Amino acid sequence: MPPDIAPVEMSKAYRLINHGPTVLVSARHAGIDNVMAAAWACALDYAPPKLTVVLDRSSYTRKLVEQSGQFVIQVPTVAQAELTRAVGRSSLADDTDKLAHCGVELFDLADHDLPFVKGCSAWLACKLIAEPHNQQAYDLFIGEVVAAWADTRVFRDGHWHFEDADPSLRSIHHVAGGNFYAIGDLLPAKL
Amino acid sequence: MPPDIAPVEMSKAYRLINHGPTVLVSARHAGIDNVMAAAWACALDYAPPKLTVVLDRSSYTRKLVEQSGQFVIQVPTVAQAELTRAVGRSSLADDTDKLAHCGVELFDLADHDLPFVKGCSAWLACKLIAEPHNQQAYDLFIGEVVAAWADTRVFRDGHWHFEDADPSLRSIHHVAGGNFYAIGDLLPAKL
Repeated sequence: MPPDIAPVEMSKAYRLINHGPTVLVSARHAGIDNVMAAAWACALDYAPPKLTVVLDRSSYTRKLVEQSGQFVIQVPTVAQAELTRAVGRSSLADDTDKLAHCGVELFDLADHDLPFVKGCSAWLACKLIAEPHNQQAYDLFIGEVVAAWADTRVFRDGHWHFEDADPSLRSIHHVAGGNFYAIGDLLPAKL
Repeated sequence: MPPDIAPVEMSKAYRLINHGPTVLVSARHAGIDNVMAAAWACALDYAPPKLTVVLDRSSYTRKLVEQSGQFVIQVPTVAQAELTRAVGRSSLADDTDKLAHCGVELFDLADHDLPFVKGCSAWLACKLIAEPHNQQAYDLFIGEVVAAWADTRVFRDGHWHFEDADPSLRSIHHVAGGNFYAIGDLLPAKL
């Protein structure tokens, strides 16, 4: 496990994606790992935590998710904007060395046979909840979060701390055509 | 129609929520209007544009959506952070004057019998695509976007322009407990 990574309580896992970041989706099946970018991922429930993600039928990662029944949703950083664009542009179907060409390095976490992307700020290991109608009609997949971790430099004690972390650790929010906005200033609740 | 509002092409409508803002959901049925906050809204398709939104079964707005088969997703601004917290905290079931107490003003748009919230930066009028299993099992609602508008001070020519608009017009991204982050700096695609 890289330094600075700590588990996140299940009751706080939704907070890792509640602010709407673009995410990386990774999956593994039969010795094949892949990673894609997804702007269309969203929390769905608190306990147990669930989420939705839209996986286009042309994506290789979707096949790995369908075959293995599990996947990782991870939150890329400003420092990974180009990596995120790159994995969104290319397909493992066309480039068997896609991950290396995109600068993706993977790491393992004990008890989870899943590929985790180095350098992200948060990781949610998910078990697919099979909903064939949603998957076929809408490319919509539902996952139950079974474990989560975050980089403690930017998420700790159940809260994001973008405002006092290095700006390169901020989450990125895709609009279109490779243009992202970084997350910005904190607007704290008035107490 | 308030000044500065212009229609958004259907092919660009997904961009209004692609960066993951917290939204306001409004609906009308039998003379009753209501507005709620939702962090769990997400694009689902491009053409026709569709989106998902999670509506808790305790919310009054959900009943109006189920009864009328339509709703509005709108993007509140930094200036509306307190309004967004307020509509998220209170229910029309407990306070029949909720909207006034929360500072919500509504306006009409021709050809749409729906309540639109003044002061937002974008509005997506949606027709409910009934999916009873998703609605019952997951509180997950699917809408097809039938028309969209944006405040041209911050979204025009199919693009957000947060970087050169007044900061009070930035979108807000809820984490938990009334704490939001505003959207931040542009990370343009390298050409």
